Amino acid sequence: MSNEKKISEVKMIPLGGVGEIGKNMMVLEMGDELLIIDTGVKFPENDLLGIDLVIPDFDYVIKNRDRVKGIVLTHGHEDHIGGLPYLLKELNVPIFGTKLTLGLLEGKLKEHRLLKDCRLKVVHSGNSINVGSFVVDFIRVNHSIADACALAIHTPLGPIIYASDFKFDQTPIDGEVADFHKLAELGDSEPGVLALFSDSTNVEREGFTLSEKVVGETVDDIFRGTKDRIIVATFASNIHRVQQVVDAAFKYNRKVAFTGRSMLNNVDIARRLGYLQIPQDMIIDIRDCGSMPDNQIVLLTTGSQGEPYAALTRMARGDHYHINIKDGDTVMISASAIPGNEKFVGQTINKLYKRGANVIYEDVSGVHVSGHASQEELKLMLNLTKPRYFVPTHGEYRHLYRHADLAKKVGIPKENIYIADIGDIIKFSQEKVVKAGSVQSGNVLIDGLGIGDVGNIVLRDRKMLSEDGIIIVVVTIDKHGKIITGPDIITRGFVYIRESEELIEAATSRVESALKECENNNITEWSVLKNTIRKSLNDYIYKKIKRNPMILPIIMEV
Amino acid sequence: MSNEKKISEVKMIPLGGVGEIGKNMMVLEMGDELLIIDTGVKFPENDLLGIDLVIPDFDYVIKNRDRVKGIVLTHGHEDHIGGLPYLLKELNVPIFGTKLTLGLLEGKLKEHRLLKDCRLKVVHSGNSINVGSFVVDFIRVNHSIADACALAIHTPLGPIIYASDFKFDQTPIDGEVADFHKLAELGDSEPGVLALFSDSTNVEREGFTLSEKVVGETVDDIFRGTKDRIIVATFASNIHRVQQVVDAAFKYNRKVAFTGRSMLNNVDIARRLGYLQIPQDMIIDIRDCGSMPDNQIVLLTTGSQGEPYAALTRMARGDHYHINIKDGDTVMISASAIPGNEKFVGQTINKLYKRGANVIYEDVSGVHVSGHASQEELKLMLNLTKPRYFVPTHGEYRHLYRHADLAKKVGIPKENIYIADIGDIIKFSQEKVVKAGSVQSGNVLIDGLGIGDVGNIVLRDRKMLSEDGIIIVVVTIDKHGKIITGPDIITRGFVYIRESEELIEAATSRVESALKECENNNITEWSVLKNTIRKSLNDYIYKKIKRNPMILPIIMEV
Repeated sequence: MSNEKKISEVKMIPLGGVGEIGKNMMVLEMGDELLIIDTGVKFPENDLLGIDLVIPDFDYVIKNRDRVKGIVLTHGHEDHIGGLPYLLKELNVPIFGTKLTLGLLEGKLKEHRLLKDCRLKVVHSGNSINVGSFVVDFIRVNHSIADACALAIHTPLGPIIYASDFKFDQTPIDGEVADFHKLAELGDSEPGVLALFSDSTNVEREGFTLSEKVVGETVDDIFRGTKDRIIVATFASNIHRVQQVVDAAFKYNRKVAFTGRSMLNNVDIARRLGYLQIPQDMIIDIRDCGSMPDNQIVLLTTGSQGEPYAALTRMARGDHYHINIKDGDTVMISASAIPGNEKFVGQTINKLYKRGANVIYEDVSGVHVSGHASQEELKLMLNLTKPRYFVPTHGEYRHLYRHADLAKKVGIPKENIYIADIGDIIKFSQEKVVKAGSVQSGNVLIDGLGIGDVGNIVLRDRKMLSEDGIIIVVVTIDKHGKIITGPDIITRGFVYIRESEELIEAATSRVESALKECENNNITEWSVLKNTIRKSLNDYIYKKIKRNPMILPIIMEV
Repeated sequence: MSNEKKISEVKMIPLGGVGEIGKNMMVLEMGDELLIIDTGVKFPENDLLGIDLVIPDFDYVIKNRDRVKGIVLTHGHEDHIGGLPYLLKELNVPIFGTKLTLGLLEGKLKEHRLLKDCRLKVVHSGNSINVGSFVVDFIRVNHSIADACALAIHTPLGPIIYASDFKFDQTPIDGEVADFHKLAELGDSEPGVLALFSDSTNVEREGFTLSEKVVGETVDDIFRGTKDRIIVATFASNIHRVQQVVDAAFKYNRKVAFTGRSMLNNVDIARRLGYLQIPQDMIIDIRDCGSMPDNQIVLLTTGSQGEPYAALTRMARGDHYHINIKDGDTVMISASAIPGNEKFVGQTINKLYKRGANVIYEDVSGVHVSGHASQEELKLMLNLTKPRYFVPTHGEYRHLYRHADLAKKVGIPKENIYIADIGDIIKFSQEKVVKAGSVQSGNVLIDGLGIGDVGNIVLRDRKMLSEDGIIIVVVTIDKHGKIITGPDIITRGFVYIRESEELIEAATSRVESALKECENNNITEWSVLKNTIRKSLNDYIYKKIKRNPMILPIIMEV
């Protein structure tokens, strides 16, 4: 690097994933060059009415697009790669990731018809790559998806380690333990690790997260004890989980069928790339399940979160094309409910039980293990890498705060810990970490094909409409402001009209007399008339029924 | 009982609380007489847009009002007494409950201006009462509210035990352990317990629920280690929890202030009735907190569920009248998040941390214990009472199913277990338990002052409005069907108009040409015109932006 000597500071700018769960994205700025780490989506919370997806605000990256040298990806989960199709419409730079990560990304880019223009570069964990002046090590870690990596990005001030989502699984399914040695080596190197960015998701959990192997033992127990059909729902991207179910199927002489779009997709990709080993003759088409004995079938399905249109949810509702849940079926939901989905998962379980299935779910230990590090693993990451500065990531404020607390306990001085907001320019130098301003950042909402066209005003209206509905008042007037027809009142989402005729009639006559008064006073300004309508109706409705519907006066001049 | 010999069957009709969490209500029918057990509310789930409360459908009770002999209450929680004001508008019968239960009910009836017409009869736990021909024993159990009772209602076929919500706390705060002896005595009596109705809330939890005392120890630890201000949020009705905080305050020389309407109310009632012991000079007004040293203050507050307008939520947001959260404050949230509230609680914690508070919440063991029995207690209840028939209650289907499973394990024959739906007429006789038809039942939705006027159509509209908003198309036509003005398009909650002018213009011209075509074909029927507008707009909008707003054509004839 020619300009290495000149660099006395590096900046990291989180565009997502701090102060929130999801849409993880980080920009590393060194000299004139930018490197993007991950570009995820977030699934909308309940208050984002009608929104399909949330992506980071790319403004800063796009304004500086000429300086962006590339994008490095840690793993293939939606909250790390799901935003890329939207970014890549604006930016064409090489993208680096492990084989499975890029395999999953490919499918996504195909859907968005972006694949042919993208430069995807496979990196094997354990290897280093050059992106502009950046040297990036891909370091194997464990997670609930295969081929996940932490990244070490070398700078003249020392490497920055971006741990991303990880856990330390001492007995991983594929035998690939995390690269403790590399982490230790970096921790021992000169001048030492500049900064660690680490996963705060499970910081509230004591101890160590259980090994994925534990689920295998539970699966084995269930298979051994079950004489009828077995249905397993899990995250389609959890290839190791799928492998364990397949292994048990093999052991207990069952064939495997798959259902659910993402399950079929991911299994296809993972098999093709060698992450999932299934003998071809073990796989049957779901349409052939009916012609086989129940005790020779395992069905792997999506729907572990109770998503309304996922395969398991359809089975529970009784509208799956090929599978009818029946007495004797054993359904294992091998996942935990993501916060916000508890109700949906619960409803699915209720319905499966009602159809006669034996449901094994979260409260049975070993049905699922987390992919995120618990407190002892987080401390181990800190102690292995011995960073000068620490930035907790991937969490709401309380998770970041608790993670900062943990870091203090293992000896990181308070002033070397930075709890970030999105958009913060975090400047690291030999002497200190400081906030050096901020860049535009936030939520960009995706609703249908619209990107960013739904903002606070539209959401506020949706909220108001959702709570008490809308009353529309139409009046036609002539050129002199005299009422010709109306007021007519039309409502939606307000009251059941047939049973509320009286209320509507009374409301109409309220508006009538308010407008009559305007006429008597020669008031013809539309804005005044509209306000009069709004106010007279609002007062009356609230007094009568304590609701605040949206009131929309429409005046038509003919 | 004169007609005792004639009775060979009794019926129980759940009007709420089975297949759902909340609005617990049961009707016992024996001969010509009805007895109502509890009348609760349910808090609306997310899909009930704009709804404030849900109560049971009282149709059956009201139709048979002359046969209702009285209402017996097990405890004072909303999901057991909250529906009474709505029922009592239609029905005037005596109401029986323990002192605290009726004390809490009184407040509620006052608000609804019903108190003076109601006949409230205090019963002490351990006592029996006569209601019509019914003999009802009030049996002490433990729960997260003081003065909770199970009920044994005697019938010629043996007593029916309605366990309601309960736990067995071996070291309760008030020293009042559950009346094991009475339960055992009933279990041993001749002809034995006819049926047990028991709480399924915590059936998924193994072992025993921890004693309330455990929280006292945690509170003591926190008080001992804290030098600054302490703020404790908990359920206002959890009087024992409040007592433990007050006791710790006394021990560590702190004064107590209260904030939040229900906290002030409940503390007032509980003190007045002798359930809460607080020396008068320990209580300070919240307005005086500022003039006292922080280490001499404990604040007890509502808001443990992150409710938007509760006191703790206001403090977290920084808009509480009297309390500003500051560095050094310790906030203990002594509650667990009720399913659906996790996000709100999380947000409150995030904000409190941001303001510098040390927050102690759910993940710290002993901060909260449940008020509901776990598996071993549920089995103990079954083994003590040895019922002939068993009906799991208070739970969604999966809870009832799991509870039924537990009952089988302790030896209740499968055919003697009844998993009920609301409205089922459960008929018990010497020989068997069967479903003998069903009565009208369901959710009655309360929105503002409206009771039951919001139904499926209104909710469907609200959902549609909430997701993609509304497009209103107004056209004025003359008597011959010729368009005079319009079409004008007005939208709310659909797109941000300023940035979507093009879309709206294009949509308008679509509608124009569709209407023009109608005109050319001499089509003047309003329904056809409306459908034409709807269809042309719908197709266009979905194609352009993949959204499905509600489309409302309005035709005005002048």
